[in-house]
Amino acid sequence: VSQTQLPTPRDRLLDAAAHLFYEKGVGRVGVELVSQTAGVSKRTLYQQFGSKDQLIADSLVAKGPSVIEQYIRSDDTALSSRERIILVFRRLQEWSTSVGFRGCPFINTAAELADPSHPARHVAREFKLRLRAHFLQQAEAGGAADAECLADQLLIIFDGAIVQAVMDLGSCEGAATQAVATLLDAHGVSAGA
Amino acid sequence: VSQTQLPTPRDRLLDAAAHLFYEKGVGRVGVELVSQTAGVSKRTLYQQFGSKDQLIADSLVAKGPSVIEQYIRSDDTALSSRERIILVFRRLQEWSTSVGFRGCPFINTAAELADPSHPARHVAREFKLRLRAHFLQQAEAGGAADAECLADQLLIIFDGAIVQAVMDLGSCEGAATQAVATLLDAHGVSAGA
Repeated sequence: VSQTQLPTPRDRLLDAAAHLFYEKGVGRVGVELVSQTAGVSKRTLYQQFGSKDQLIADSLVAKGPSVIEQYIRSDDTALSSRERIILVFRRLQEWSTSVGFRGCPFINTAAELADPSHPARHVAREFKLRLRAHFLQQAEAGGAADAECLADQLLIIFDGAIVQAVMDLGSCEGAATQAVATLLDAHGVSAGA
Repeated sequence: VSQTQLPTPRDRLLDAAAHLFYEKGVGRVGVELVSQTAGVSKRTLYQQFGSKDQLIADSLVAKGPSVIEQYIRSDDTALSSRERIILVFRRLQEWSTSVGFRGCPFINTAAELADPSHPARHVAREFKLRLRAHFLQQAEAGGAADAECLADQLLIIFDGAIVQAVMDLGSCEGAATQAVATLLDAHGVSAGA
């Protein structure tokens, strides 16, 4: 007898929640809709997560890695640090023009949940800090004059470019990537680095 | 008999709505709370605005100019273009460390309201484009090599710096302002320009 691993009710709830919260915003999606979409009872939802707030946090934990993979991939190690940094912004450009793009789920969560002590705010911050850590690592490997500061600047441009895409504010294609190249030059992270 | 101009019920509703939506997010604030806070009946609220969605849009129209004044002021005309641009980022730094700062109400509105055709999304975009127009004007006056592109880049850094402040992502103080100085140098907007 072949055993196929079917998604558990918990998995289905996490998947439906992540999808719906991203598409419509956490405020506009009730537990009713999540449980219906997952095909799981509301009773099970509350048994598994206790509250909508915890479901928001846990669904972000579950979805987060696939978001990060949109712009950081493990098979980039053959490239130079400079190329690896610029690649993040090229992929952001692809992602931000793809169907269903609704911004960064971590930024959206932080914008929607005003209380900084909300459990999902903590999760959102952790995932953003992973991207910062990637920038810092590449900045150091590339010999940046001030790697910490460059990492901050790259993350600022990354998040600003997302806001620009969501709100349709830009006039000049590739403005973010060009800014990144300028900053890499200023910090001494050259093409061969 | 002296006539003091008291705020109308409409003004009180706009004021309460703008304040509450910014503080708690539009999703977490109902018309009930807005009307209670304003001391105006829900019936009047609906007579004046028709719907919560329209109230969100109209309160952003009413609040927007005071947000813009946080970082652009009319008495800056004696300064150079470069100084006027950098001043926007200095003021952002002050604003983002002030009590009650909860990010940019325009970004928050766009993040919360997933539907790009929502009336408040249009208002939010208009106010962001005012800041972009200010950057473009200063970039042109300062002789930027590519003023349109520089304006995009400055707005990207502005919005990214807001996300950084809201989510507490930074390690290097003044990273945004330093990035701005680097980009101004690269575009040839010098201190005397």
